[in-house]
Amino acid sequence: MIEQREWKPSVRELVRRREDLRRRLAEQQLDGLCLFSPHHVLYLTGSAFIATERPMAVLQVWDREPVLFIPYLEREHAVETTGCTVETYPEYPDREHPMRRLVPLVAARGLRRLGVDSDGYGGGYGYRGPRLSELVKCEVVQVGEAIEEATWIKSPEELEFIRESARWANLAHALLQEYTRPDAVETEVSARASLEASLAMARALGPGYRPTKSGLPAHAGFRGQIGTQSALPHATTTNTRIRAGDVVVTGASADVAGYCSELERTMIVGRPTEKQKRYFGLMLAAQDLALEMIRPGRRCAEVDTAVRDLFQREGIWDAWRHHTGHGLGLRMHEAPFLDVGDETILQPGMVLSVEPGLYIPGFAGFRHSDTLAVTEGGIELLTFYPRALKDLVIA
Amino acid sequence: MIEQREWKPSVRELVRRREDLRRRLAEQQLDGLCLFSPHHVLYLTGSAFIATERPMAVLQVWDREPVLFIPYLEREHAVETTGCTVETYPEYPDREHPMRRLVPLVAARGLRRLGVDSDGYGGGYGYRGPRLSELVKCEVVQVGEAIEEATWIKSPEELEFIRESARWANLAHALLQEYTRPDAVETEVSARASLEASLAMARALGPGYRPTKSGLPAHAGFRGQIGTQSALPHATTTNTRIRAGDVVVTGASADVAGYCSELERTMIVGRPTEKQKRYFGLMLAAQDLALEMIRPGRRCAEVDTAVRDLFQREGIWDAWRHHTGHGLGLRMHEAPFLDVGDETILQPGMVLSVEPGLYIPGFAGFRHSDTLAVTEGGIELLTFYPRALKDLVIA
Repeated sequence: MIEQREWKPSVRELVRRREDLRRRLAEQQLDGLCLFSPHHVLYLTGSAFIATERPMAVLQVWDREPVLFIPYLEREHAVETTGCTVETYPEYPDREHPMRRLVPLVAARGLRRLGVDSDGYGGGYGYRGPRLSELVKCEVVQVGEAIEEATWIKSPEELEFIRESARWANLAHALLQEYTRPDAVETEVSARASLEASLAMARALGPGYRPTKSGLPAHAGFRGQIGTQSALPHATTTNTRIRAGDVVVTGASADVAGYCSELERTMIVGRPTEKQKRYFGLMLAAQDLALEMIRPGRRCAEVDTAVRDLFQREGIWDAWRHHTGHGLGLRMHEAPFLDVGDETILQPGMVLSVEPGLYIPGFAGFRHSDTLAVTEGGIELLTFYPRALKDLVIA
Repeated sequence: MIEQREWKPSVRELVRRREDLRRRLAEQQLDGLCLFSPHHVLYLTGSAFIATERPMAVLQVWDREPVLFIPYLEREHAVETTGCTVETYPEYPDREHPMRRLVPLVAARGLRRLGVDSDGYGGGYGYRGPRLSELVKCEVVQVGEAIEEATWIKSPEELEFIRESARWANLAHALLQEYTRPDAVETEVSARASLEASLAMARALGPGYRPTKSGLPAHAGFRGQIGTQSALPHATTTNTRIRAGDVVVTGASADVAGYCSELERTMIVGRPTEKQKRYFGLMLAAQDLALEMIRPGRRCAEVDTAVRDLFQREGIWDAWRHHTGHGLGLRMHEAPFLDVGDETILQPGMVLSVEPGLYIPGFAGFRHSDTLAVTEGGIELLTFYPRALKDLVIA
């Protein structure tokens, strides 16, 4: 039998995840888990669903296959994309609240202590419902933080998804840079680069690739950080026209089995001025410093402290706006944070963005973001787009 | 002075919203509100921010301007886009938890009873924090449901935003239909239509238009509902090639001041078969029935019951997968629901999607979705794309 490469977690990886959780939660003496977050459903089952008012959950009894609890409208979709047992309820709100349908599933498995990420579906989208603990007879134990911590350490397979994400982010960014020129319109450059990268990605990875989110699977853009607006770290997309002399701050990523990477670059349209060069150089120095600092055993706070010290030493504290980086994986932002307030010890398998930025209101902003994995010996850069000014000047 | 049209809530509208909340919450005898949901921040301030691990809130004391509590990195962005007082904290997690910076802002305003939508920032993105009620001296009252109910009734200005959204969704969908043809690739058709509609929209509305979300402001696509996959109500985007004979189910929307509309159509590629015509006709009959049923004073459940009865009567219950529709506004899905389990009485100003669907696994799915407003006399259709089969056949 010829197996087609599928861009989703292998059965072995899914088993690893639940065994890892079981080990981490051993002291809690749980009989199983009931997780409501769509990210946790994806983590334990490998399947992604569009979140709506209709609650979803994964019920994980140790040593058994996970059970997907989903609305009836997702049944065929779930059967097609997962090997889990699928249990459905008709609709939300319906005449009987869906949570009441979850109760017999818990009871039938004889669970006495059940770990949850939240005490009921947290959904939003107009959902209202009772706490799970009000309905079930077993003990309900909050273990959300422990589950999040388990997801911080990426397995070799998860790292492979993130490396693959970085490749297509790289293509999207290369196209973005190619189409960035004076008088080009932000939305047009961004959409063209994202479309072409997404088509190439979907064709290259073949039918075994299935996006987990709506929208294009690979994308690159500016999110409004063009010209003086580049000084707003989280500007929002506008239909800005790029002008000669602009500093632009970009962002690119791609969705592989739900995993993402983060690639951001500062580019300069036309010959850089001395002032632009100076800030670009300081930004690069701050990123270099952070990259040097990161190694297993270091605390997150030490990295950010070193970067803040550089801001102080160089007399550019006025340009400081945010911490050095954040974890990422199934989410674009997750803990731990490269932040003076985060005492987490860096461990092999953690994946982090490294992105100290400088922002000078009325002038420009400067930020590169790279995604790296902490390794036994130091770090592996997962994004690999050129970082030097000479490679980021739009002629 | 010539005023430029700004596509954001007017000062008068923002005052209306807080006065409406004050009236609705009168019995609670609150001195003010502290709301953490990004949708509620947008509702009270008119400003949208990219949500991250960094908590945000709006602090609303009656008779005063709202106070935006945001991370330092959003300061310039907030000052540029809002007239609110802006209070910042340095970073999350930082050495001092941001919630501790919110406490003196509450204390300084002498609040004794404070309404909240959640007892602290609900963020996700790796955020952890204490409950607000653990930190402040005043009484904290959960009023999230009352606030959601206030947002169900749209003002004339909000309806105007949704009408405007429907216009650009209509353009995106017209382009989508134009580019849909045998052998076209899903992603390409969708991205091209979305890009062109977004550029037209941004140019037509001018610099007073500012998207509130990342991604393209107008979009249309298939989300994977092509050919037999159209039978999955919530399929996810794939790089499917459209074939002659396919049934496709589309979706289009546009972002105007954070408001959306929902437009979905069933189209048939090539001459429809008798079986396709039959199901299309039944779907249309179900939608017609729902549209006739909706009027002020009716209960949501009555509308869905009538539609379910039609499924039973026509012997097509096997093709039923979901309720008739849902509220929408700042969110694509919100309460109330056109569902047998929702006893909410329809009132003028409510905006709902109407989208009964038929799904036949292995064959095809059939669903139109239109957005309407309940009026004093009945309904106003806000989406206006052709609904008849003859207008939805791809020659």
